[in-house]
Amino acid sequence: MLFSPLIDQLIESLRCLPGVGPKTAQRMAFYLLEQHRDKGFHLAESINQAMQNIKHCQQCRTFSETDLCALCASTKRDPKLLCIVETPADVIAIEQTGVYRGYYFVLMGHISPLDGIGPEKLGFDLLQSRLKKSEISEIIIATNHTIEGEATAHYITELVKPLKIKTSRIAHGIPLGGELEYTDSGTLADAFADRRHYD
Amino acid sequence: MLFSPLIDQLIESLRCLPGVGPKTAQRMAFYLLEQHRDKGFHLAESINQAMQNIKHCQQCRTFSETDLCALCASTKRDPKLLCIVETPADVIAIEQTGVYRGYYFVLMGHISPLDGIGPEKLGFDLLQSRLKKSEISEIIIATNHTIEGEATAHYITELVKPLKIKTSRIAHGIPLGGELEYTDSGTLADAFADRRHYD
Repeated sequence: MLFSPLIDQLIESLRCLPGVGPKTAQRMAFYLLEQHRDKGFHLAESINQAMQNIKHCQQCRTFSETDLCALCASTKRDPKLLCIVETPADVIAIEQTGVYRGYYFVLMGHISPLDGIGPEKLGFDLLQSRLKKSEISEIIIATNHTIEGEATAHYITELVKPLKIKTSRIAHGIPLGGELEYTDSGTLADAFADRRHYD
Repeated sequence: MLFSPLIDQLIESLRCLPGVGPKTAQRMAFYLLEQHRDKGFHLAESINQAMQNIKHCQQCRTFSETDLCALCASTKRDPKLLCIVETPADVIAIEQTGVYRGYYFVLMGHISPLDGIGPEKLGFDLLQSRLKKSEISEIIIATNHTIEGEATAHYITELVKPLKIKTSRIAHGIPLGGELEYTDSGTLADAFADRRHYD
């Protein structure tokens, strides 16, 4: 025990947050105790409400407190397009570009046998039944460009093949503002392999 | 609104913690939502308990849920020594050295006119009445070696002068393992000014 039992418990609990070590947790605890108890109560209330009420959207699997998330409930999107991503944060990243107006499917992870995450945990049954029922004519696979993301993308292409729906993968290559001299060789190799021919 | 209202509220609330920006708050929120809801509930409960029950020790002003903190309640300390520090974390730092066995007085801050913190907010009335009542024979001032810490130390010496109690300031100089070549000139100047004569 370093401080009083309740302070120690607060510091220990804050350490459950990702990226928070003992010193940061101590700083956070004293910050709340010193002059921000109202913020502390508000934070506790927000956590409780979120932990209790947030479940998964029944259509796209993203986090949502309603059965259908705001995006799936919207009727202004293009019902012919479906973009498959790994996480809710990926949806936000794509939405912020403004280039995509279809619907999403959120895997809430990627295939990773080492972490015990097989296809059965990524909602592919929900995805398949949705593809069979709906009028989707193109699937855009936007999983990360990592080993797990690529494995997941490959799994999806195999899954979709019998349904004969047009499927694409977002492009991999030089990022905006990228200079060839400072681009890693893996990215440069991608950029050559996926080069686009002038019409 | 980026995500659903409850998720946005959770992210916004987490941002009240020091050092937590929008991306970190988002990462924390999804971490709790994904597979750690029990930790989330526990964290909320710890915050609530701490915000509700932690007050100040009536003798030394540190944070404590009891009227007297564990250290002030101990009878195994030397009642002749009093060490004055700025924060509860300073108490822990000194306790971890194991060199001090007296009691503490925690200012819970330092004099800082720019932040509107005058002496009246640092419990000097409590300190004075304690000095008059008790058998303290030496006061060790261990405020930080910063402008505010030094100003506070100076204020304390003026306050204690009429009481004729021996008062000392912790030493300032080269830290353990410090090489002169890489020591800043302010520290080096301190080390010369406070040099200790061989007996």
